[in-house]
Amino acid sequence: MAVDSVHSSSWRNEPVGIVGLGLIGGSIALDLRRQGVQVQALVNRSETAERARQRGLADVVSTDAAVLSDCAVVVLALPLDRLLDPDPALVAAIPQQAVLTDVGSVKTPVLAVWQGLHQRFVASHPMAGTAQAGIEAGLEGLFVGRPWVATPTAQTDAIALACVQDLAGMLGARWLCCPAADHDRAVALISHLPVLVSAALLQTADRAAATADGGSSGTLSGLVRALASSGFADTTRVGGGNPMLGTLMARTNREALQQAVAAYQQALIAIEQQLSAGDWSALESDLRQAQSLRPQFVQADRSAG
Amino acid sequence: MAVDSVHSSSWRNEPVGIVGLGLIGGSIALDLRRQGVQVQALVNRSETAERARQRGLADVVSTDAAVLSDCAVVVLALPLDRLLDPDPALVAAIPQQAVLTDVGSVKTPVLAVWQGLHQRFVASHPMAGTAQAGIEAGLEGLFVGRPWVATPTAQTDAIALACVQDLAGMLGARWLCCPAADHDRAVALISHLPVLVSAALLQTADRAAATADGGSSGTLSGLVRALASSGFADTTRVGGGNPMLGTLMARTNREALQQAVAAYQQALIAIEQQLSAGDWSALESDLRQAQSLRPQFVQADRSAG
Repeated sequence: MAVDSVHSSSWRNEPVGIVGLGLIGGSIALDLRRQGVQVQALVNRSETAERARQRGLADVVSTDAAVLSDCAVVVLALPLDRLLDPDPALVAAIPQQAVLTDVGSVKTPVLAVWQGLHQRFVASHPMAGTAQAGIEAGLEGLFVGRPWVATPTAQTDAIALACVQDLAGMLGARWLCCPAADHDRAVALISHLPVLVSAALLQTADRAAATADGGSSGTLSGLVRALASSGFADTTRVGGGNPMLGTLMARTNREALQQAVAAYQQALIAIEQQLSAGDWSALESDLRQAQSLRPQFVQADRSAG
Repeated sequence: MAVDSVHSSSWRNEPVGIVGLGLIGGSIALDLRRQGVQVQALVNRSETAERARQRGLADVVSTDAAVLSDCAVVVLALPLDRLLDPDPALVAAIPQQAVLTDVGSVKTPVLAVWQGLHQRFVASHPMAGTAQAGIEAGLEGLFVGRPWVATPTAQTDAIALACVQDLAGMLGARWLCCPAADHDRAVALISHLPVLVSAALLQTADRAAATADGGSSGTLSGLVRALASSGFADTTRVGGGNPMLGTLMARTNREALQQAVAAYQQALIAIEQQLSAGDWSALESDLRQAQSLRPQFVQADRSAG
């Protein structure tokens, strides 16, 4: 049955389809079930389906896309690469009148693919995560207080958009709307650039020490490992994350990330020049600005640091 | 009384002088007192002395350097700038036979100043910290499991060195010795470079968004602030720290830090070229290397991440 009422919450009485039961899909499924919504999930492998049933992630779990046939809302909780190159059988199985959304972390390419495939598609990005992935990762309450960004276009169905907003609200998320290009530039700066900056720091600590040691693992290589403390641990956490995910972000958000890296290189050049010139008042002024900026980005109630 | 026995623990029966009762000095004082060592502290201001007495940080707290006159060991727990430009009255008050050590986070300039001022000087660096500073910051057990690095030279008194090692061991620290230049290059890579890398990330997220908004605080400036999550919080923690401390580290460890920044810029250029060329296998290989490097630096039992 289609969601076409003026009441954006009418979808709650219909089955919701979740495609993929990893961290995001599994967590959405758990939260919806807990609130009495019928959840019907599609997964790739029968072993995954069996484990999903054991975990009680959904009311129905199937490897057959026909499981979506009576769903009023479908959430594509797939990795970006599969989202951008979707299985034709999946596309065909999504009911034409269903509200369709995704959870991809880059929005422009997702819109480019899916807006043409489904009339009632709403591009969205629930920004929650843990270090876990896969069928064991889903957990209740993952989205509480976290941003859920939608990137509607002029073509986006208003009722479908309201329906996804209602779903996000039901899971406790903070709803935001913005153009896809703005979303992608923002996540390039606050999510994808940090991965590269952080990975480069790990590489530098390793390579510069090895170079000073004469190419082998000598004194300095041992020292940097022995002396690294919580500050280094924090600064390198995201750089030590999943390499495939990091590469996928870079591929799919390449242009915005290139601009972010270029801007970052300019900031570093300024710091390098302060060091060369011994301009300590300029350096202190920049560090003072950084100190005052951080609380604008990191609110106490949603900081892990 | 001088520590001149072959038993490096004989100092424990003599008073220990602590100059400065901030985070490091206060924590050393608390741990020593708890283990029955007589602690005599020198501070700058009478208000600080009064608060130190209330906190029970030392047996005797004074603003008069004469408090050090019968100390067998003296710990200079001063900020680097005061350590590098010491009060002549302090220098004169340190008993000639006392074992003297410091806690400065850069060792080459400290040695340059103090090795000529005191025969039994041992340059050392207990690598522990919290975000706190000042007379309220000291706490018990701060050094347990943390590195305590000494940087002896050919001139260093061997018994004095053994005495400082015994003190560090008494506080539960992991003792390491290395040349001062190696220490300074290592901390440039794993402690001082992360501050600059992290501060530059905060600046970039702010400036690149403002530039895209046309110089004022518009959509993107709001979005980056709304969407920044725990990854951004972690990566920017040290960059949002004390600007005076960051500048002091840069001033006193300038050459090593310049080399570290130059090496870091090379790593970023490589990443930029991978993005430009769309060389995703090279990027993934670099990210994979970063992922495998991190556990070498960040051991689970001493990571805050």
